[in-house]
Amino acid sequence: MTGQQLASQRHAANQEVFRRMCASEPVLSDIRPAGEVVPALHPAMVLTSGPRLDWSDYDGGQRAALIGGALYEGLAADAAEAEARFDAGLIEIGACQDHACIGSVAGIYTASMPVFVIENPPFGVRAFSNMYEGRARKRLNYGSFDDEVRNRLDQIRDSVAPVLGEAVRRSGGVPLKPLMQRALHMGDELHSRNTAASLLFSAALIPQFLDMAPALGAEVKRVAGLLVEDNYFFLRLSMGAAKVTALAAEGVTGSSVVVSMGLNCRNFGLRMSGLDAWVVGPLPTVEAKLFDGHTADEITWLGGESIITETIGLGGLSQAAAFPLLAYQGGDAQEMIARTEAMYRITVGESPDYRIPVLNYRGAPTGIDVMKVVETGQTPYLDVGVAGRGGLQIGAGVVRAPAALFEAAAQLYLEAYG
Amino acid sequence: MTGQQLASQRHAANQEVFRRMCASEPVLSDIRPAGEVVPALHPAMVLTSGPRLDWSDYDGGQRAALIGGALYEGLAADAAEAEARFDAGLIEIGACQDHACIGSVAGIYTASMPVFVIENPPFGVRAFSNMYEGRARKRLNYGSFDDEVRNRLDQIRDSVAPVLGEAVRRSGGVPLKPLMQRALHMGDELHSRNTAASLLFSAALIPQFLDMAPALGAEVKRVAGLLVEDNYFFLRLSMGAAKVTALAAEGVTGSSVVVSMGLNCRNFGLRMSGLDAWVVGPLPTVEAKLFDGHTADEITWLGGESIITETIGLGGLSQAAAFPLLAYQGGDAQEMIARTEAMYRITVGESPDYRIPVLNYRGAPTGIDVMKVVETGQTPYLDVGVAGRGGLQIGAGVVRAPAALFEAAAQLYLEAYG
Repeated sequence: MTGQQLASQRHAANQEVFRRMCASEPVLSDIRPAGEVVPALHPAMVLTSGPRLDWSDYDGGQRAALIGGALYEGLAADAAEAEARFDAGLIEIGACQDHACIGSVAGIYTASMPVFVIENPPFGVRAFSNMYEGRARKRLNYGSFDDEVRNRLDQIRDSVAPVLGEAVRRSGGVPLKPLMQRALHMGDELHSRNTAASLLFSAALIPQFLDMAPALGAEVKRVAGLLVEDNYFFLRLSMGAAKVTALAAEGVTGSSVVVSMGLNCRNFGLRMSGLDAWVVGPLPTVEAKLFDGHTADEITWLGGESIITETIGLGGLSQAAAFPLLAYQGGDAQEMIARTEAMYRITVGESPDYRIPVLNYRGAPTGIDVMKVVETGQTPYLDVGVAGRGGLQIGAGVVRAPAALFEAAAQLYLEAYG
Repeated sequence: MTGQQLASQRHAANQEVFRRMCASEPVLSDIRPAGEVVPALHPAMVLTSGPRLDWSDYDGGQRAALIGGALYEGLAADAAEAEARFDAGLIEIGACQDHACIGSVAGIYTASMPVFVIENPPFGVRAFSNMYEGRARKRLNYGSFDDEVRNRLDQIRDSVAPVLGEAVRRSGGVPLKPLMQRALHMGDELHSRNTAASLLFSAALIPQFLDMAPALGAEVKRVAGLLVEDNYFFLRLSMGAAKVTALAAEGVTGSSVVVSMGLNCRNFGLRMSGLDAWVVGPLPTVEAKLFDGHTADEITWLGGESIITETIGLGGLSQAAAFPLLAYQGGDAQEMIARTEAMYRITVGESPDYRIPVLNYRGAPTGIDVMKVVETGQTPYLDVGVAGRGGLQIGAGVVRAPAALFEAAAQLYLEAYG
């Protein structure tokens, strides 16, 4: 193939990926135990974020989280037994995204955990996202596991999921795109800021909550309270919506557009639509604003796939929609605008649905083209939560995806298609 | 007094006004029939927006709205009888702000209409605001009165007010400042955009609605739905909060800061804290984005006091917080930022509570100093709804308060204190 033919094929394929991303219509249809709905997730399995590693390669917080997941699921009596069983392959490890799941930080999924079921009717695909553990800084997904963490997970399984699932089913399904569109006009970029989206989601279910109140008063009240008191509740829904959107865009021959990103404790990985493989590169460095009392030497990586939101043009790519992040992750408003503006140089198009008010409603830069990243040297901005070695969230910040990863991806693309 | 003494007195007085505005804590404590709570509002009285005129001077939509108010209250059997009774002084006309009320557009208040009771505990003052008529474009406050308008007003009195009032009383009162602070981070300027504030207000009352649902299911559901489906519900609360804030700042000897603004069908009026009098000037011109099918020659003035929000630094003064207004009233994001920046030249200080994300959380420009307006030639920007002659809202836009008004006010100030 000549260079020109290759460019022309790539252009057409990338347009198709962009078209599919834009035509996606994520809808929350149900909340179910992961074991009932997630493909190939069996009871003796723990899913975790990022490209799959061998058990022996998981260390630090992500290893601790895997062990915590095994204990939570009753797959071992204590940490030593869990380690032995992982080692022997009696507990299997899966990569979230190989199962249409999407992992926040360590991204632990086990069969009994409830998951949001998110459909994409125009494309007949679905994705799954498990539920936020709440505002406590000690969470399984940050590598902590103790009675407090277990109790919260039990409460999510036994109270939050049934009540919310009932409300979702009564509603006939909650279309997420309209909520996300509006949230972008209200200071969210739908990764590190989900305040408006959480409120809008809660408002969408008020009629169902009111119908359920006579029978389930106190429980409905508690669950409804969770949705609005915790400004991050919607994150798992925006991640699931982004995953089901990106899923629809997979498998377009010749496309160099990123349809998946994810970290494990060792690598930053991405997948392009036109190549059925993870490309891995080094972990990034983060410009973080740490919570009081924490220092940069505590920062650790234990995986994370919430950057699926960036994959469809939200999060760090749409920072200019979310100035309230200044209070959370630091920075400067003009710099946030400049970052989003830079992202138009590496993306395929502008979303007709997700729009950025301060740019006079210009569509979000959507569809990261690996080749454009390499040509311009601009790597994507990513808004991330920052984990500390102690199993806590210790801050939030902005990450630049590493250039080496995109260079490796471009290389692979050219080898496959050149 | 020398010029320097005068300047120094004015500076100190204006700082005191600014301090009072900032120290105000508006709280919605109840919803009650106006006749029970509004001072000196008697049953044969209709309040309306702007400095008080003689009956014969009210024309167009404001006159129609006064007649509509009289008919709604049962003070006359038909329009001719209402006119005759106004003419004979048998129905009294009052100015909203002389009764601690604040009028939207024509601003009609009668004794049976429910009003929000908004307290300001640090200063022991309270203000009143009546309720939004809903998204129908035909409304009493735009000069329409027929069975449809009457039915909606009845519904507000008989259903919305009792249900919402019960929820508010059960809550022990809803502090409005925290909701307004958050709304400014979510795309509201709390005059022409109240989307986030309406959602936040609704979320604040969910626990009470759920408690009330077993007894009052369908009605609670309908009322809760109104709060969120209609993105303007909160406007009357932001107006009431602004009024009770400005009220606390009245009566500071020597102050040239505006504590009240209001239009009637003939004049644009303002009051300064240090002078117990309305200063009146010409009606402004508006840069409006009209709804489809309407033209500029239909624009008419029938009063309006929602610009009390600008009086405390919100609305047009904080346009840079509300880019979503671009979709509603047109314009350009950079221009909105420039407008807010210009407003710092004419105000006393920056609000410690109401802050503007795109300006890196700079406080809203607060406390319009008449003398600074005259010195700089910058008159305040005001975000307004635009009324048409037919009794409808026909658009929304930005108004510049007229320079002549501020020149007259400065003149009066110098006569009083010079």
